[in-house]
Amino acid sequence: MFALGDLSLTIKGGVQHGLWGGAIVNLGTQWHHETFLPDIISCRLPGCFAMTEMGHGSDVMSVETTITYLPATSEFDVHSPTASATKAYIGNAAEHGRAAAVFGQLWVDGTCHGVHTIVVPIRDEAGQAMPGVTLGDHGHKGGLLGVDNGTISFDHVRVPRTHLLNRYGGINEDGVYSSPIANPNARFFTMVGTLVRGRICVAAGAVQATRKALTIATTYGLRRSQFRAPGLGEEILLLDYRAHQRKLLPNIARAYAYGFSINEIAQQLQRLHDVDVPEPRQARELETRAAGLKAVLSRWANDTIQVCREACGGAGYMSDAGITLLRQDTDVFATFEGDNAVLLQLVAKGMLQDYARTWGEMDTVDLARHMARMVGEGFMERTAARTVIDRLVQTAQRTPDAELLTDRGWQVSMFEARERHIVEALARRMRRAKGLGDQEAFDVVNACQPHMLKAGIVHTDRIILEAFIAGIDAVEDPAVKLLLGKLCDLFVLDNLLDDATWFLEHNRMPNSRVNQLRQAVNGLCAELRSHAQLLIDGFGIPRAWIHSTLMGED
Amino acid sequence: MFALGDLSLTIKGGVQHGLWGGAIVNLGTQWHHETFLPDIISCRLPGCFAMTEMGHGSDVMSVETTITYLPATSEFDVHSPTASATKAYIGNAAEHGRAAAVFGQLWVDGTCHGVHTIVVPIRDEAGQAMPGVTLGDHGHKGGLLGVDNGTISFDHVRVPRTHLLNRYGGINEDGVYSSPIANPNARFFTMVGTLVRGRICVAAGAVQATRKALTIATTYGLRRSQFRAPGLGEEILLLDYRAHQRKLLPNIARAYAYGFSINEIAQQLQRLHDVDVPEPRQARELETRAAGLKAVLSRWANDTIQVCREACGGAGYMSDAGITLLRQDTDVFATFEGDNAVLLQLVAKGMLQDYARTWGEMDTVDLARHMARMVGEGFMERTAARTVIDRLVQTAQRTPDAELLTDRGWQVSMFEARERHIVEALARRMRRAKGLGDQEAFDVVNACQPHMLKAGIVHTDRIILEAFIAGIDAVEDPAVKLLLGKLCDLFVLDNLLDDATWFLEHNRMPNSRVNQLRQAVNGLCAELRSHAQLLIDGFGIPRAWIHSTLMGED
Repeated sequence: MFALGDLSLTIKGGVQHGLWGGAIVNLGTQWHHETFLPDIISCRLPGCFAMTEMGHGSDVMSVETTITYLPATSEFDVHSPTASATKAYIGNAAEHGRAAAVFGQLWVDGTCHGVHTIVVPIRDEAGQAMPGVTLGDHGHKGGLLGVDNGTISFDHVRVPRTHLLNRYGGINEDGVYSSPIANPNARFFTMVGTLVRGRICVAAGAVQATRKALTIATTYGLRRSQFRAPGLGEEILLLDYRAHQRKLLPNIARAYAYGFSINEIAQQLQRLHDVDVPEPRQARELETRAAGLKAVLSRWANDTIQVCREACGGAGYMSDAGITLLRQDTDVFATFEGDNAVLLQLVAKGMLQDYARTWGEMDTVDLARHMARMVGEGFMERTAARTVIDRLVQTAQRTPDAELLTDRGWQVSMFEARERHIVEALARRMRRAKGLGDQEAFDVVNACQPHMLKAGIVHTDRIILEAFIAGIDAVEDPAVKLLLGKLCDLFVLDNLLDDATWFLEHNRMPNSRVNQLRQAVNGLCAELRSHAQLLIDGFGIPRAWIHSTLMGED
Repeated sequence: MFALGDLSLTIKGGVQHGLWGGAIVNLGTQWHHETFLPDIISCRLPGCFAMTEMGHGSDVMSVETTITYLPATSEFDVHSPTASATKAYIGNAAEHGRAAAVFGQLWVDGTCHGVHTIVVPIRDEAGQAMPGVTLGDHGHKGGLLGVDNGTISFDHVRVPRTHLLNRYGGINEDGVYSSPIANPNARFFTMVGTLVRGRICVAAGAVQATRKALTIATTYGLRRSQFRAPGLGEEILLLDYRAHQRKLLPNIARAYAYGFSINEIAQQLQRLHDVDVPEPRQARELETRAAGLKAVLSRWANDTIQVCREACGGAGYMSDAGITLLRQDTDVFATFEGDNAVLLQLVAKGMLQDYARTWGEMDTVDLARHMARMVGEGFMERTAARTVIDRLVQTAQRTPDAELLTDRGWQVSMFEARERHIVEALARRMRRAKGLGDQEAFDVVNACQPHMLKAGIVHTDRIILEAFIAGIDAVEDPAVKLLLGKLCDLFVLDNLLDDATWFLEHNRMPNSRVNQLRQAVNGLCAELRSHAQLLIDGFGIPRAWIHSTLMGED
């Protein structure tokens, strides 16, 4: 909802309630909840999520900030030992934040227990930096100018023992450290797993922002005409040009697909939230899926809002058209809450592992070295609408060739076959690292990087398709079901056409299929063009929320 | 040079000297040159190029502004008859422009002679709008905030007869219209042909801006490390990751390729400028090539500067990293000086026509209807280094399969075969319009639009490759030649890999070639990574001109 209004507000809300509040909820215990949450919810206590440092963004495990226990006073000393330990790009830090959930290495009696989080006051009520705290402002950015990103560093700042968020590890009154999770790696990944909400919100915000841009560009394409054809009288509407349809309609189809995938993961998150102790495997699955959706949907948002800008010509470049700000604000979605390249590798890693036992406990090189057995058939479970999809796939085996392209079961089986093939090939390549020396093992894994990114994408594409199918299955109105079915066809066939090199290379489709796909995509674009107004109306964005000179009169 | 400094300044300069001055030079005659040029060159007379209107951007032939001859006073009446006739997005209009080259329909004694251009004063020396002239400001834009884009409309503004730029059509003292070009369509296309300089400058500026972004991102990739591999000690430099190499190195290769193509077309422009009356065919070829380069290079600039932004993570999103401004400023390059989709169709049209006789005289539907004969073998002439390339292609026929990928002759023949196939297939499809009714003929051409865009791109890719080969051939230093050869390999193989679907679909390569291409691209990335510093130094951008916090100490 926020993202349909203003993305800076979305991120300010995300920082305050999702990250800062989320850290208290997920990493803290009863005292923290009672002490901090009411004021966080009401915004009386604006706060920061101080994880990233100048020196370490993606590699959170290597943050340098220290949280050292001082038994004499039952306090912690929070300190930035180097310039690269400075907390960086932190939302709410430059102006509004009064406290921060600070990630650092916990030291107790000379032993480091790895990354933990502690609540540190950073500003007094007058807005002045607390003693020992240095605050900076990153100044102008490429977008999100309503968010006060800044730096924080600490010069031996003392905070009470109780401020350590101790759900997964803390110090008792005798100064002894204990944790319910013995393995430090598993503990770390459990703690950073709290990022899952942030990633889901970024993915959802990306979809909403892009739907808004698509609404503006499609409306413009239905109003703006240019050039005449001989004998046809009226100038031709932009959206009647095939090339223009190809720019917008497959992206409208994706906007629907991605919306269903967001609905699905939000429900999955809620189900996990509803149980006291979630099953670790389910928690890991959710994290993998959130990582994949965040990467794929934010990439699409960046690309598609740009397409929308260009589809409006020079008019789209004027700020009052309402598109360039969306583009600038979503830009950073590709790298914050996890760099997309890192997240897709996380997905690939998840696909290769037996989640329950080894997830997160090995880095990728070790994983490659120890990948003793092939991931079996079981690695790929259907994630939504299992019964429906099982039936569709079985039926497809009897579908005549001429009708294959719009056969949902065939579509699913193409996505599944691609994913299975890519993961199996990746596992085979990575197993070559077994028994190699450090440099050689790294080289093997490094050479697989583009393969890993591809694996992460095709896995996510399949998850999205399954969510789309489940969404359509739940619709009762036959006309809506029919139209969503056409959108699903366009989503799938456009995806297969984009990736035709892979299918041809691996003999998964005959050469002639490419032109069939192209014709089918063009045909669906032409068919859906007549429903274009309905399709953008279906995004459900209130007209009054879209501030754009390109929308015409109400 | 300007583009390495500031893109707003580049565009201000382009408007003043390229467009406004260019209109006087190319469309005016001696009196205009003597009267206006000295003050244009010195910037004492800032001016506008007032072509685009609210209602008509790409379709310049349909502008609505009227230029009506008034015989009683030997004046012209310049008028905006509708709101959509308002001149829009005009650089220099909102603030600095004192005069404008205004495009409008010329009416003489009740007859319309089509689009002509006239000099109209729009502001007095105090900066106030002249009587009858209404000036507006587009306000904030997605970028180029140093350019004052605005609107201009005219309420029966009178200007002297002499102000009509009359090189291609004017009124004598007796009020009689005459033109050296009898055919109104040919006259129109000759006049708008003056845009060719603007397009070349946009393409060149796009390359320079992208080289600057690549310099910043590559420098960062050589300084910034993240994550450790087991047993390897130091953290790993970003540019040592394969996925990171794949982001940057193929784009560095393109930056070299595109630089050579800009050098080539600049020389071609100069050659044409050096003769009094250029051969029409050569002029048309230059226009087609400029259109293609502008479209391909501006697309690449947009995409690649974004890649550079993301390759620097959150740090790249800070404005003082120096990348987001480049991204925002180049954004509009995709649609100004001709929308890329329109320009690529212009290229395709050029490929299909016998330039000298029919270019510009038919719209695309008519062209399709009248395409009586196939474009022959002669349509594809080598554009640079003919002798060298002829020899390379001949030699390639004896190259063993294992060495094909890095055989320059084979590379050229792949680009040529693709272009020939695509153009021939396009011609066949478009000939189906022959004898059809208006709607059906439009439908045939409209269905070919994506095909036309593809034709425009592959033609331009071949032109670029030829310029690259000519550039390498002219280098004497063997080490430089060798390194440029590697870059050329990467440019070609990355292009073929990107487009592998087309080659597989049309049986132009075996399936196994795709993996060979992938391996070769990865191998070249790994090899060129060790020269990364040298390669960005080779862009020749003075360190002092790059204002970026990511460049480290000098």
